[in-house]
Amino acid sequence: MLKKVSLTTQFNDVVNITDEIKKIVKESGIKEGVCHVYNPHSTAGLTSTSFWDPNGWLDLQDEICRLIPTRIDFKHQHDTPQDAAAHIKSSLLGISMSFIIDSGELLVGSSQGIFFLEFDGPRNRHYFVKVIAG
Amino acid sequence: MLKKVSLTTQFNDVVNITDEIKKIVKESGIKEGVCHVYNPHSTAGLTSTSFWDPNGWLDLQDEICRLIPTRIDFKHQHDTPQDAAAHIKSSLLGISMSFIIDSGELLVGSSQGIFFLEFDGPRNRHYFVKVIAG
Amino acid sequence: MLKKVSLTTQFNDVVNITDEIKKIVKESGIKEGVCHVYNPHSTAGLTSTSFWDPNGWLDLQDEICRLIPTRIDFKHQHDTPQDAAAHIKSSLLGISMSFIIDSGELLVGSSQGIFFLEFDGPRNRHYFVKVIAG
Repeated sequence: MLKKVSLTTQFNDVVNITDEIKKIVKESGIKEGVCHVYNPHSTAGLTSTSFWDPNGWLDLQDEICRLIPTRIDFKHQHDTPQDAAAHIKSSLLGISMSFIIDSGELLVGSSQGIFFLEFDGPRNRHYFVKVIAG
Repeated sequence: MLKKVSLTTQFNDVVNITDEIKKIVKESGIKEGVCHVYNPHSTAGLTSTSFWDPNGWLDLQDEICRLIPTRIDFKHQHDTPQDAAAHIKSSLLGISMSFIIDSGELLVGSSQGIFFLEFDGPRNRHYFVKVIAG
Repeated sequence: MLKKVSLTTQFNDVVNITDEIKKIVKESGIKEGVCHVYNPHSTAGLTSTSFWDPNGWLDLQDEICRLIPTRIDFKHQHDTPQDAAAHIKSSLLGISMSFIIDSGELLVGSSQGIFFLEFDGPRNRHYFVKVIAG
């Protein structure tokens, strides 16, 4: 089963997509298997971090922006510096995640959330969720 | 086949879990397929690096701690600074890995080890290994 | 279906392997499923970034080398400093990627390329592509 999910992001956004993915897994009816989540945008990423405190999500973007500064002297000058940095952030954070499905539920830790990372924005975005029995 | 493996970690630990995962793949009896490894903790991660020299594992934690310092001025103040930094390290290093199974063996390079990264600790931890034929 | 692909890299190379992987997926004849790509070298990695401008690939290596400098004072002294740094880069960027196959095609974004990251080199290298129906 393959689902395409749309979302709208803000600038340098961190969007909690955990509940959406849990819902898709439940609706699939698959009891044991794997769930693949995929982001098709080269200025966005996917990751997991603690979901309890939205302030922690701000720290995550702060740290990513500190590690890969939006400098004007990238060799890549075809896009904006924001985009040039975003391509590297996407590369570093990753664009796909794989989860285990156990007894019909997405297996995630009690503090783990799944997040869509926007490194540009605001933008209309989407991601894909594939659920496989096995 | 889904297995839950327990381990005890030290502070900022790097635990070699390669042999455990190889053993689970062998015991599954699956000849061709995929092996998913999943860490459910938001202050831990999973990665691969050379397994030959434990000093290299110390360098790995040193570099992760240098990249994401345990500073006291994170926006997230609900947990300790160690935890706030750990959530970001977990996000950056990743929490799941996928391996190919070929002729009944886990396909890994001759220098590659699989490691559980503890960004807090000492703690009782666990991770999941799912083996699928295909 | 499991394929081993050989390539020759330059020092700190970024090799676009997108077309090769798309071709393997097409040749597999699998219409719906998952494609796993795996790098077995502990001084190399796999990632995705925008494929439009090769200058952006240079920025990617520049940033990785800036984040993990090739310093001579690593605790790991068994290999060269280039190798010691490369093990950490491989750990940070990752060694495996999972893609969705939709209607017989690799599902990737219109700007996304798949890249083999060489953190040493020049070297003879290889990677594996496994295609599974599901």
